[in-house]
Amino acid sequence: MEASVQVSRGEESQQMENTGHHLRDRVDYAQRLKKLFDPKSVAIIGASTTFGKWGQLISSNIVAGGFDGKIFPVNPKSKEMFGLPVSRTVGDIQDTVDVAFITTPADTVPSVLRDCGRKGVKGAVIISSGFSETDMAGKDLEREIVRLSLENDILIIGPNTMGIICPYADLFATGSHTRPRKGTVAFVSQSGNLGNQLIHWAEQQGIGISLFVGSGNEAMITCPDYLEYLEHDPHTKIIALYLESAGNGAHFIEVAKRVNKKKPLIVLKGGRTEAGRAAAASHTGSMSGEDAIFRAACRQAGILNARVPSGLLNLSAGFSSLPLPQGNRVGIVTLGGGWGVVTADECNEKGLVVPDIPGDIVEAIGRHLPPFWSKGNPVDLVGTRDPYAPIVAVEELMKWDGVDAVISLGLVGRDELVRFLIQSTSKADPDMPQEFLDQIEALSHEYEEAYIEKMVEFMETYEKPIIGVTMARTDKGTVRPLPGRRYSGVFYQTPETGVNVLAGMVAYSRLSGLTSAPLPSL
Amino acid sequence: MEASVQVSRGEESQQMENTGHHLRDRVDYAQRLKKLFDPKSVAIIGASTTFGKWGQLISSNIVAGGFDGKIFPVNPKSKEMFGLPVSRTVGDIQDTVDVAFITTPADTVPSVLRDCGRKGVKGAVIISSGFSETDMAGKDLEREIVRLSLENDILIIGPNTMGIICPYADLFATGSHTRPRKGTVAFVSQSGNLGNQLIHWAEQQGIGISLFVGSGNEAMITCPDYLEYLEHDPHTKIIALYLESAGNGAHFIEVAKRVNKKKPLIVLKGGRTEAGRAAAASHTGSMSGEDAIFRAACRQAGILNARVPSGLLNLSAGFSSLPLPQGNRVGIVTLGGGWGVVTADECNEKGLVVPDIPGDIVEAIGRHLPPFWSKGNPVDLVGTRDPYAPIVAVEELMKWDGVDAVISLGLVGRDELVRFLIQSTSKADPDMPQEFLDQIEALSHEYEEAYIEKMVEFMETYEKPIIGVTMARTDKGTVRPLPGRRYSGVFYQTPETGVNVLAGMVAYSRLSGLTSAPLPSL
Repeated sequence: MEASVQVSRGEESQQMENTGHHLRDRVDYAQRLKKLFDPKSVAIIGASTTFGKWGQLISSNIVAGGFDGKIFPVNPKSKEMFGLPVSRTVGDIQDTVDVAFITTPADTVPSVLRDCGRKGVKGAVIISSGFSETDMAGKDLEREIVRLSLENDILIIGPNTMGIICPYADLFATGSHTRPRKGTVAFVSQSGNLGNQLIHWAEQQGIGISLFVGSGNEAMITCPDYLEYLEHDPHTKIIALYLESAGNGAHFIEVAKRVNKKKPLIVLKGGRTEAGRAAAASHTGSMSGEDAIFRAACRQAGILNARVPSGLLNLSAGFSSLPLPQGNRVGIVTLGGGWGVVTADECNEKGLVVPDIPGDIVEAIGRHLPPFWSKGNPVDLVGTRDPYAPIVAVEELMKWDGVDAVISLGLVGRDELVRFLIQSTSKADPDMPQEFLDQIEALSHEYEEAYIEKMVEFMETYEKPIIGVTMARTDKGTVRPLPGRRYSGVFYQTPETGVNVLAGMVAYSRLSGLTSAPLPSL
Repeated sequence: MEASVQVSRGEESQQMENTGHHLRDRVDYAQRLKKLFDPKSVAIIGASTTFGKWGQLISSNIVAGGFDGKIFPVNPKSKEMFGLPVSRTVGDIQDTVDVAFITTPADTVPSVLRDCGRKGVKGAVIISSGFSETDMAGKDLEREIVRLSLENDILIIGPNTMGIICPYADLFATGSHTRPRKGTVAFVSQSGNLGNQLIHWAEQQGIGISLFVGSGNEAMITCPDYLEYLEHDPHTKIIALYLESAGNGAHFIEVAKRVNKKKPLIVLKGGRTEAGRAAAASHTGSMSGEDAIFRAACRQAGILNARVPSGLLNLSAGFSSLPLPQGNRVGIVTLGGGWGVVTADECNEKGLVVPDIPGDIVEAIGRHLPPFWSKGNPVDLVGTRDPYAPIVAVEELMKWDGVDAVISLGLVGRDELVRFLIQSTSKADPDMPQEFLDQIEALSHEYEEAYIEKMVEFMETYEKPIIGVTMARTDKGTVRPLPGRRYSGVFYQTPETGVNVLAGMVAYSRLSGLTSAPLPSL
């Protein structure tokens, strides 16, 4: 054991348990995490105002993020920072402390944990690095802090974590100061950097999150513990996981399988290939397991695998915003033919079916289209200006029991092109009243909003997902939530992304017994 | 022949030629297109000021787009529009007309073409729809306008095209008022809607274009004609093609193969699958060929296939901005471990190699990194703040003859996160001088610009591509050109996109004999 620096995550704590030091079991961890993720008071040990230091990044994020519990900066060299009194040590704080964020150098962490123990702090997020991810001495130090934490009854996240975000506690405690909205997706990441960036994407895309945890070296709390916690977390409906090592693979799969039955679990396993494995082994002190076995186990357990980080995000957006499809048959509505062709190709290649539509639906949709329209699926709106045509087309498909989902291409995301057209008209045509152009722009926005509302309404009525595709970059994000609605509008930039997500959702439906349609290729 | 409405594109003109009506050959077409794409004067037949009509969209775009030739609106009901005198017919124009844009209803097009013939107009872009894409009568009408055009010695683009863009003539004549910068990528699209959107993406991503043509129904000028023109166009270095029907497949492949040897040709074939084919057949009056045969032929001819429209764009960005890789070995430099793992995985899965780096390079890079860094490839900068570290790491890899390309993850695209951090610090810490924070923000921008400049410098010195990945949405686009430089910075949003593009470029290098590395999987 001592011969190799690289150990599976959580190995130390397992060793501790095996040697009978403590009998604390993982279910207990899961229950106790609740307090850690919803604290009433936090201490930041190593708090600082030096721009860019971890003690500054975490403190200023917690303060500016609006945490409504008590905040206690700890730093022996300061009396006040962020408008708050500063304590010399955690022991000096004249109040209870639920969670300590520790940002001081690795070699100070043991004594900080002892202080925390004496103070009765039950949870610590150890941001500090310099543990098992570095060298033998770091590995020893990590073992030491686990021992101390168990002795002092402190639950620790990390070390070497880039922090946590608990939106329902308004607690933003990461190095990146991005603040995604409250929602139902929990992200757990074994890579801090990747996790922080994912959360930034989530914020940019409008994906609401229930929790983010950078799990760091997982010296004590490991992925399955987080899963068990999330299984019962009322805010979490979807779980996205970036994993480099599954630790005890069998245990992970057992827990993941159970949780996945209640809440869709999407796993991205980094280090699938030889090159990736070599990279993974070196940067977090973990040794990746064999991917083929892991993937087979996931597949058997019905757990979705994403191939890339963007896949985790996109699937999260879909699962958290749309009803599950009850089958693999897709209706496509497009403003222009080419996009319909590309989307139908993608559906076919993923094993989704694009069925012909019956005469009565052709007739109903045709009332809003020129006589030479395609009369098929995809429904090509041939650039019609009839504002009802796309809405009628989508509803006719949603009503019909021949499709399980609808993909809507265009109509949302045209704001930039509309703005260009208006600017250009205004420049070219001096006689054009600006007021009229302003009205056009306003109408275009209103139509987009009304269209999204209609889509959400249809999803609630017919309980089928509508996947929107903008086909252009937009600043409005992927998820377009509407107050008080069960579902949200979801608009991806490309058809392939939308089709991928739909295929993933069909796969989950299949695994959940919602459909017996063939499993899409993922 | 008459039994089916669906005919291959270009069939009518081939029939015309076969019946000996005219002996004009396609090389002549290609030469004459030059004048069509660089006109000194244009007429817009059906010009209008009614917002949203094709006659308004095209006219206002040409006027506002800054075309520096003469513009002649034609409309019998108007005397002046866009500050320009309006002619009743094309014959009334008191000047020569190089190209006529025709936007009047389909049934008026024959007489318009006769007018053009009498006036001596040699080129027409027929925007009007209502031809072979509709019904039998439309098909007859299309045959009629080809006959008339040949009789009157007029070259026609379309009908049923959404227009053309010739940036070097400052001629923007499409329905979308997006204006990509001048560059080296030519786009030809058989779908107008898809083509217009692609051009909008190109503009958003900063991809410079040499030409855009929506080829419409291709009644006369077909894809191979455009390819032959582009083969000799001095502005064009890369050709991207969205195809639904290759018409005479053997002829297409023959031309494409020849052109591809000089200028990389990237083809997206819509209608690959049953569903896609059905969709393609209905919307432009074309019947898609069998995809398997087409793909095999492309592969044999060394022509790259993109699977989705975004792939066309991304490959265009890479080919037009970066030197070609001379092999398939990749060095990876990353700010955080997780992204390196994911990127290495993607490289491996595409058949690119991520080799170990030798001791002297480990040593050189290590001087800028903490002692416990990965000492391998990917080079994990473990979040170092040393501004030289990433630059040294990239240059060491570029210098080394063990890799053919470098992927740089992070460092560019952090502007939003930096801004968030600064806003949040300013909010949390009343004692922080705003001036200092402003400086930080400015420095961060400057560093990004300096980094991009360094990357371009390295590419010029070592003639290897550097693929950048931002890992976040940014408003600055994918391509970051620098004045007077041979190459541009290229920064994709995701690692998978960057790896895909690199794999495509390696494939092209292999086909061009630049390397004998195994063909990547595309």
